[in-house]
Amino acid sequence: MSFLHTTEFTVEFGDCDPARIVFYPNFFRWMDAASRHFFTAAGVPTWHETEASDGIIGTPLVDATAKFQRPATFGDRITVDTTIDEWRGRSFVMKHVIRRGDVVLVEGREIRIFARRHPDDATRIQSVEIPQHFRKLVE
Amino acid sequence: MSFLHTTEFTVEFGDCDPARIVFYPNFFRWMDAASRHFFTAAGVPTWHETEASDGIIGTPLVDATAKFQRPATFGDRITVDTTIDEWRGRSFVMKHVIRRGDVVLVEGREIRIFARRHPDDATRIQSVEIPQHFRKLVE
Amino acid sequence: MSFLHTTEFTVEFGDCDPARIVFYPNFFRWMDAASRHFFTAAGVPTWHETEASDGIIGTPLVDATAKFQRPATFGDRITVDTTIDEWRGRSFVMKHVIRRGDVVLVEGREIRIFARRHPDDATRIQSVEIPQHFRKLVE
Amino acid sequence: MSFLHTTEFTVEFGDCDPARIVFYPNFFRWMDAASRHFFTAAGVPTWHETEASDGIIGTPLVDATAKFQRPATFGDRITVDTTIDEWRGRSFVMKHVIRRGDVVLVEGREIRIFARRHPDDATRIQSVEIPQHFRKLVE
Repeated sequence: MSFLHTTEFTVEFGDCDPARIVFYPNFFRWMDAASRHFFTAAGVPTWHETEASDGIIGTPLVDATAKFQRPATFGDRITVDTTIDEWRGRSFVMKHVIRRGDVVLVEGREIRIFARRHPDDATRIQSVEIPQHFRKLVE
Repeated sequence: MSFLHTTEFTVEFGDCDPARIVFYPNFFRWMDAASRHFFTAAGVPTWHETEASDGIIGTPLVDATAKFQRPATFGDRITVDTTIDEWRGRSFVMKHVIRRGDVVLVEGREIRIFARRHPDDATRIQSVEIPQHFRKLVE
Repeated sequence: MSFLHTTEFTVEFGDCDPARIVFYPNFFRWMDAASRHFFTAAGVPTWHETEASDGIIGTPLVDATAKFQRPATFGDRITVDTTIDEWRGRSFVMKHVIRRGDVVLVEGREIRIFARRHPDDATRIQSVEIPQHFRKLVE
Repeated sequence: MSFLHTTEFTVEFGDCDPARIVFYPNFFRWMDAASRHFFTAAGVPTWHETEASDGIIGTPLVDATAKFQRPATFGDRITVDTTIDEWRGRSFVMKHVIRRGDVVLVEGREIRIFARRHPDDATRIQSVEIPQHFRKLVE
């Protein structure tokens, strides 16, 4: 069983499009934020701190998926339940269930890696082994 | 063979995050825009016009997926090749291949429906049969 | 003295740019959301409801200004103190003071109107007289 | 007379809000992008390159203003005419006139500085003297 963290968001007017429902890339924005809050809640330091200590600048995406079951609109309070579903070699799968009250709106998955800056080129990044001290915190 | 349309975008500084690469939800933003440009290029009227003529307000998402193969950074010119991969009952699958020059960066898929406002509640939407006169334009 | 409402936001990784500070248009996004939460806290119904009751679809902008005094970065908790500074004929001035703790980061002003859809063209909007029953709630 | 550069953008569906007009922070996003394209067109290297050569990571904002004269909606092609209006000690004023065809939609001003990372703290930035070799390119 993975650690579970719930993040709350409010759907703002500006998050919605002319169809009056959430413009769907915003759901990925909320999943990305929920991923970070998951790690913070588990005790993983900020990427500012891990860059200084471990060279790790974040957990960029390899793959992202979402199933949109029901729309949300402005004024809605939504919650994102985040867990880690699976650990693979250098990557891991985060699962996000987005709800309004008891109603599931979106189910998303993100496959992520831990990354540092490329040692020879500050504009590139590269994957690192999954840091076991961080993994322990979220299992 | 589906109709194919290519949309071009420039990656702006503000599209990138502190890791200096595109903040990934923006790739979905570009896919969504590419979907619309695909229909426009094929001759489907604007959603302003189809709302007046057919009640159709757009093509909301049922499912979205992206595989992130290489990152992009600010200043990059990217192209999105959009096709329709499959027609299902009331939904259809759009495929987007995002490249910088010859290098594939992201491969995405969106499952969409055609929607109109709910007749009894203007804040809700509902799916409609795939309009055959629009389908003909993009096959 | 105007009604005052405080809205809280968390600065997310994806809200920041490659300089690692908030991409400045996001401060306007937060001011816009704070404007709406100000009205909600004062008892003004949602724009969904006011559209049905009064035809009012929102409070679009005439003018927006921000002075950026200090940057914010991801992980920061910020608060926005929102008041109405001035009532003019058909417009009004909202003032937003954005702080991290006691430190003022941004001071913004938005001049807004109340708007409804144009009766002859659903794609256009037009200003209306300031609704006195809403004004009373926020004075 | 300043150098003048025109940047073009397409207003996408997802750039618009439930009032069916551009969500106003996007106009600041386009101004910010236009600022960068202005410097690029004048021959100023990318911020990737200036960080390596001069330590300069960009031109963060001190102040931003926009007057919204007419709304824009999805499908609109807009142009942004960018010039530098004034040079002050360590700051400068960029002016952006946003048009749809001949119709002025928005007039914006951004006061910016040239910045580098703080030498003692990579998470902070600080202003530098206006680099005369860059200033010459845009006058």
